[in-house]
Amino acid sequence: MEATTFVLFGATGDLAKRKIYPALYNLFVDGKLPNAFSVVGLGRRELTDETFRENVARSLRSFSRREANEGESLDAFLNAFRYNVLDIGRKEDYEKLLRLVEAREAELGAAPNRLFYLSVGPEFFETIAANIRDSGLGSADGWKRLVIEKPFGHDLQSARDLNAKLSRSFAEDEIYRIDHYLGKPMVQKLEILQQANPVLQALWTNRHIANVQITANETVGVEERAGYYDHVGAVRDMFQNHMLQLLMMLAIHLPHNSTSDEVRTKKRKVIEALEPLAKEDVAANVVRGQYAAGEIQGKPVVGYTSEPGIAADSANDTFIAAELHIDDYFWRGVPFYIRTGKRMKEKSTRIVIEFKELAGEHTQSDDKTKAPNLLVFEISPNEGITLQLNTRDPQHKGEFQPMLVNFHTSQQDVPEAYENLIHDALQGDPTFFAHWDEVELSWKWVQPILDAFKDDLVPLRTYAAGTYGPAEADELLARNGHRWRFDDADNQTQTKEGATYAYHANH
Amino acid sequence: MEATTFVLFGATGDLAKRKIYPALYNLFVDGKLPNAFSVVGLGRRELTDETFRENVARSLRSFSRREANEGESLDAFLNAFRYNVLDIGRKEDYEKLLRLVEAREAELGAAPNRLFYLSVGPEFFETIAANIRDSGLGSADGWKRLVIEKPFGHDLQSARDLNAKLSRSFAEDEIYRIDHYLGKPMVQKLEILQQANPVLQALWTNRHIANVQITANETVGVEERAGYYDHVGAVRDMFQNHMLQLLMMLAIHLPHNSTSDEVRTKKRKVIEALEPLAKEDVAANVVRGQYAAGEIQGKPVVGYTSEPGIAADSANDTFIAAELHIDDYFWRGVPFYIRTGKRMKEKSTRIVIEFKELAGEHTQSDDKTKAPNLLVFEISPNEGITLQLNTRDPQHKGEFQPMLVNFHTSQQDVPEAYENLIHDALQGDPTFFAHWDEVELSWKWVQPILDAFKDDLVPLRTYAAGTYGPAEADELLARNGHRWRFDDADNQTQTKEGATYAYHANH
Repeated sequence: MEATTFVLFGATGDLAKRKIYPALYNLFVDGKLPNAFSVVGLGRRELTDETFRENVARSLRSFSRREANEGESLDAFLNAFRYNVLDIGRKEDYEKLLRLVEAREAELGAAPNRLFYLSVGPEFFETIAANIRDSGLGSADGWKRLVIEKPFGHDLQSARDLNAKLSRSFAEDEIYRIDHYLGKPMVQKLEILQQANPVLQALWTNRHIANVQITANETVGVEERAGYYDHVGAVRDMFQNHMLQLLMMLAIHLPHNSTSDEVRTKKRKVIEALEPLAKEDVAANVVRGQYAAGEIQGKPVVGYTSEPGIAADSANDTFIAAELHIDDYFWRGVPFYIRTGKRMKEKSTRIVIEFKELAGEHTQSDDKTKAPNLLVFEISPNEGITLQLNTRDPQHKGEFQPMLVNFHTSQQDVPEAYENLIHDALQGDPTFFAHWDEVELSWKWVQPILDAFKDDLVPLRTYAAGTYGPAEADELLARNGHRWRFDDADNQTQTKEGATYAYHANH
Repeated sequence: MEATTFVLFGATGDLAKRKIYPALYNLFVDGKLPNAFSVVGLGRRELTDETFRENVARSLRSFSRREANEGESLDAFLNAFRYNVLDIGRKEDYEKLLRLVEAREAELGAAPNRLFYLSVGPEFFETIAANIRDSGLGSADGWKRLVIEKPFGHDLQSARDLNAKLSRSFAEDEIYRIDHYLGKPMVQKLEILQQANPVLQALWTNRHIANVQITANETVGVEERAGYYDHVGAVRDMFQNHMLQLLMMLAIHLPHNSTSDEVRTKKRKVIEALEPLAKEDVAANVVRGQYAAGEIQGKPVVGYTSEPGIAADSANDTFIAAELHIDDYFWRGVPFYIRTGKRMKEKSTRIVIEFKELAGEHTQSDDKTKAPNLLVFEISPNEGITLQLNTRDPQHKGEFQPMLVNFHTSQQDVPEAYENLIHDALQGDPTFFAHWDEVELSWKWVQPILDAFKDDLVPLRTYAAGTYGPAEADELLARNGHRWRFDDADNQTQTKEGATYAYHANH
């Protein structure tokens, strides 16, 4: 791997502590960092290098999936860290930064490859990018890359404006837009599983698939993000980015060993094939929800409008469900149901593929007890694949029972999304980042929903906290003869008393 | 369930102790015996009813999958047992038996439905059947059924002779030929799984299946059966009956809720569609093996010809492997590889379905590390289904790794073959018994192999005990570009260090 200086804006922030430092540490333990690797942390606060390193070490102890015990290995890791105070608007600070970066590169004998990681609010993106350019930080004789976090715009126009501004300092292939759902290992495996397995390929068609259900549910409420979230809602916070990215990753058909360019092209084709929704059709295809008071795991919780920092008359969406259609050869006729919400009954991100009955197999009397075949990709909090088959005790004819053939890995063993993404950015692999085309086309598809919500064309449905959302989200599927599958999976899959299960995996 | 008198010939024998009494007891515990149920045990030895019951209770303690503790429940079970001494050739003993059976029926107020279970050598079948007829035991005003164990004949002619003799006393639909492989729960589920699951149905065709591998391997040698086994060999002991039954059960295509008649008809169609093997073609398609000295689980064991009771120059087969073809619409072009042996490396009965690569997906450079997709039905000693998929760490491109999506039940929870079969015989359901047509057609298909072995047209290959058989069994597949899959499955599926696996099932 090429020598890299990792320049981190927002080095004292929450994301850095919770995600970025642990990710770097785990990459370090796995030997996945460049030999010549240097981190320069930037923040408004004055900190010595020593205090900065102590803060980093503390964040590892709290948030790393691996233990970070004191010792040579941890010292070697922390030794790469330097800190510089920086006022985002002050040109002089960037010149000072440039000198530090150059000094570190000289010390390490390293080529001037610089990764600028902007772990700061989007309102600062433009200023930072311009200053990187103007200070000369971005014009060394190596590569430069800009890593940015969501949100990327507030609607189609603001996203276009932001992109135009960033483009003055960075080319599209230098911009790595993080959508951390794309870093989740199971999401990254979706294309590989489909490509590498003839049995899945054979089934991966609208001849066999009845519908696809993409769920990302949280049990938490707005937490400390009230001010931000109340202007954003589920549609911007989750749907426009993460949910549509999951849809693209599931729906693309890729050749073997496709390049990142092919991935981008195919993803764009999927979203271009999404049947557009006119503003006046939003109400029929999208459910807008907001949580009321309820219970989460037995504990009462307040409704959204009683949360600190939320106006009592807020009409913000904390839940959205939608039916989408991809008008291409593979997916024509297969509804994609997307659902995401806060204060839901269970925390889970999963994709369920429901298979059709074969023609002519429909009208049997025993079908009432027969569940559809499901292929379930569990994305988080646990990673797994489940195939739901039907079986029947030959000695108790008449009643079918679901049989879950499944594969689960433990959380501990699975790299975090940020590890994968930072590693890819260091290697210059843009496959699992959001390309501008996708971002723009996603906003374009979502814009009529934003407009319809704003003009109050879509009634706001309330749901009790700790449920699976408003009844209208069930009706959305019921009109097509479908229903949300695999909710309450934990209840479905309780093991029979007295039975024990052997389980093997080799991966 | 209808009142039944269960008349057991060979009540002091090994099969009765190990299988029949435990099966009856487990059916009793599950409430699956008729309310009016009576067992009459028959043997050459003089025994009081009390001693007989003590013997039965002892067999339960040793061999039942459930505990048989003293108490009311066990007493109620044993209370149904009576014993009568019987010399198989003495007509008077059958008259005495008739009087006992009638007395029991009168005591219980039960209809004279009689199930005659012949747990004795086949040389006695004819005499017993004739005496049942002549004594009037078989002519009461209820139903009569004859349950017999293998072997059913020694070759095609002797099987036909035996059947002709039994037919004088029992109609075909009164004869229940036990093939205990048909009683194994996973074998009984094969048709249900295929019928009830569109994803399996979609894959169940020669377009997607590369080959089918049916293995029944034992680690034991001839044990106490030397005299019998040396005249029989693997071809008669396992192949003609169990292996061909497994092939039929896998290959049949049945409509939903098919009747036992439909099952029989379809099974016959499968075996009729088996491409016949001419005597002179046997050597090219069948491997005949015999174990030499070797090691089983680290312990040295002698070769077959050094076993007590086996002649030093015996050319008997303890292993057979064969390639078969079913010439019908579904299976044309799909080789069925069958293999069974003694003193093999692992004890396992399983069916492996290997899937094809899809057209045009062949020539990729990364295919070298890619395993085929496999669907594995584990039949015994453990029951399970495994789907082997390929995955790849997106962060380590290039190398595929198998991912085993699987389902296993514990042994304790699975009813034994004999429970299922005895229950079916009590209910008069012949679905999972070997019909005469199947027996005759199996012998007909196997006869050229017997002839070729006898005329020494097929070289006897030796294999070291504790291996997977002679090298020629691998070459049999290699000539088609195939190989035996899922051998050493336990080694394949060792869990990665540090990983733990969650596992759910609901059945």
